[in-house]
Amino acid sequence: MGAIRTRIEAALAHTLPAADRAPTRLHSAIRYAVLEGGKRVRPLLAFAAGEVVIAPPARLDAVSCALEFIHAYSLVHDDMPCMDNDVLRRGKPTVHVEFDEATALLVGDSLQTLAFEVLSQVGLCENAAVQLDMLSTLAIASGTHGMAGGQAIDLAATGVTLTFPELEFMHIHKTGALIRAAVKLGALSGERQDHAVMHALDQYAKHIGLAFQVVDDCLDAESTTATLGKTAGKDAVQGKSTYVSVLGLPRAKALAEELRQSAHEVLLPLGTRAARLGALADFVVRRQF
Amino acid sequence: MGAIRTRIEAALAHTLPAADRAPTRLHSAIRYAVLEGGKRVRPLLAFAAGEVVIAPPARLDAVSCALEFIHAYSLVHDDMPCMDNDVLRRGKPTVHVEFDEATALLVGDSLQTLAFEVLSQVGLCENAAVQLDMLSTLAIASGTHGMAGGQAIDLAATGVTLTFPELEFMHIHKTGALIRAAVKLGALSGERQDHAVMHALDQYAKHIGLAFQVVDDCLDAESTTATLGKTAGKDAVQGKSTYVSVLGLPRAKALAEELRQSAHEVLLPLGTRAARLGALADFVVRRQF
Repeated sequence: MGAIRTRIEAALAHTLPAADRAPTRLHSAIRYAVLEGGKRVRPLLAFAAGEVVIAPPARLDAVSCALEFIHAYSLVHDDMPCMDNDVLRRGKPTVHVEFDEATALLVGDSLQTLAFEVLSQVGLCENAAVQLDMLSTLAIASGTHGMAGGQAIDLAATGVTLTFPELEFMHIHKTGALIRAAVKLGALSGERQDHAVMHALDQYAKHIGLAFQVVDDCLDAESTTATLGKTAGKDAVQGKSTYVSVLGLPRAKALAEELRQSAHEVLLPLGTRAARLGALADFVVRRQF
Repeated sequence: MGAIRTRIEAALAHTLPAADRAPTRLHSAIRYAVLEGGKRVRPLLAFAAGEVVIAPPARLDAVSCALEFIHAYSLVHDDMPCMDNDVLRRGKPTVHVEFDEATALLVGDSLQTLAFEVLSQVGLCENAAVQLDMLSTLAIASGTHGMAGGQAIDLAATGVTLTFPELEFMHIHKTGALIRAAVKLGALSGERQDHAVMHALDQYAKHIGLAFQVVDDCLDAESTTATLGKTAGKDAVQGKSTYVSVLGLPRAKALAEELRQSAHEVLLPLGTRAARLGALADFVVRRQF
């Protein structure tokens, strides 16, 4: 996993505009937002799904960049004063603190654009129709029926006590959609697509997407700011409904473990090629940050 | 032109998510940001360029929506308190005034996503490679080497006196890039692309892109807020360099007229099919809002 992470970091650094290219302040801020830090869960999932379908690594590099740029854009905008108003992310001051609010706004905007630019480059896939499917998948996962929609539901729900199904609905959009897209984009990077494999991978992604958020909520409740690299205990302070507030910590942890096991089960028919996806399920649930 | 405008309005209203679909507040705000108002210059340019290459109108509908969504996203974000802090747009309160800042942020984010979603839909072009070219063109025009980059240069230049070449550089990015993309996307909507035609259309688009901004600056200096539908006289108050502050009003107007004539000249070899592009050059330069 270490080698793939190193590869992903190199691809990100290489694909982002150079800091000395005009407009330099914007480009510096964009690099600051993406590089150094970040678990790279979405790129790792894309690479792991790509292993199942024997996808070329160069294509997975581009897919990984697109996914991470969308993720980073959402973090930069979510941290802004009019949203979560957070000052710490990945152990560093957030972009609007380190630079300024206007720059943070443009950083997020530009990163989103760059994600679609990277995925639309000539020759990325041999089959242009598959490449359009990738673009469409990423757009739908990021928009109002995916990540941005989940964020809007989250905003509306602050200070409101949600039921378990409402909470699940929110996170299926806010976190789950992009994680599902990560696995699908990895799977679309292979030369051929097998329907049964795609279906199994999507089932896996659904379990992992929810598990990721359940664990995030547990970590927010249990960890220190130093360990997390972002402000801990924020959910309780902001009166947000979380898996911990709705289920309690022990049941939330049991749910994460259940989802981990379900993820492993749906991978069984895929055999050893899915080993890395299995390892990622373990990482997502057992991580400490 | 009236019939095409009506067609564009219908396409926008039809393509945007319905206001009663969850998340309803976000979807209402998105529709508020795009519908009712707007000159639709970019869609009109795409339709006019499409006439030159006999493009199917349904494809031009999608292209128009993508262009107008990118344009509307940039306006919503530019109006926010951390950027231009404006309260009036297209004769209505800006999105962050009518709704709130967090919603305005998500509206812009979602509109950008939706632009790429619309352009990546299955079957939009018979040739998937041409469709990827459209997506790539739109992304590059919107990003840090295009519109967002121009916005960053504009931010850095507030309160600084620019030279004419610096001003031109800024606007070639900030306004020019998306206008050029509008003409190119219209031209790519035809069944075949002819290199000489594409080149002439691009020359036309460069003239029109600059003319558009020169006229905008003249109108900001000369008009009332009521006529413009947005705050007039803002450039002078904010100490921004404009074509009027750098050249003076008479020379700025002469420049706009020169650019209009240059636009007509490059259209000559295209014959009568380019008549609507000629009419749009006149509209862009002689408009009162």
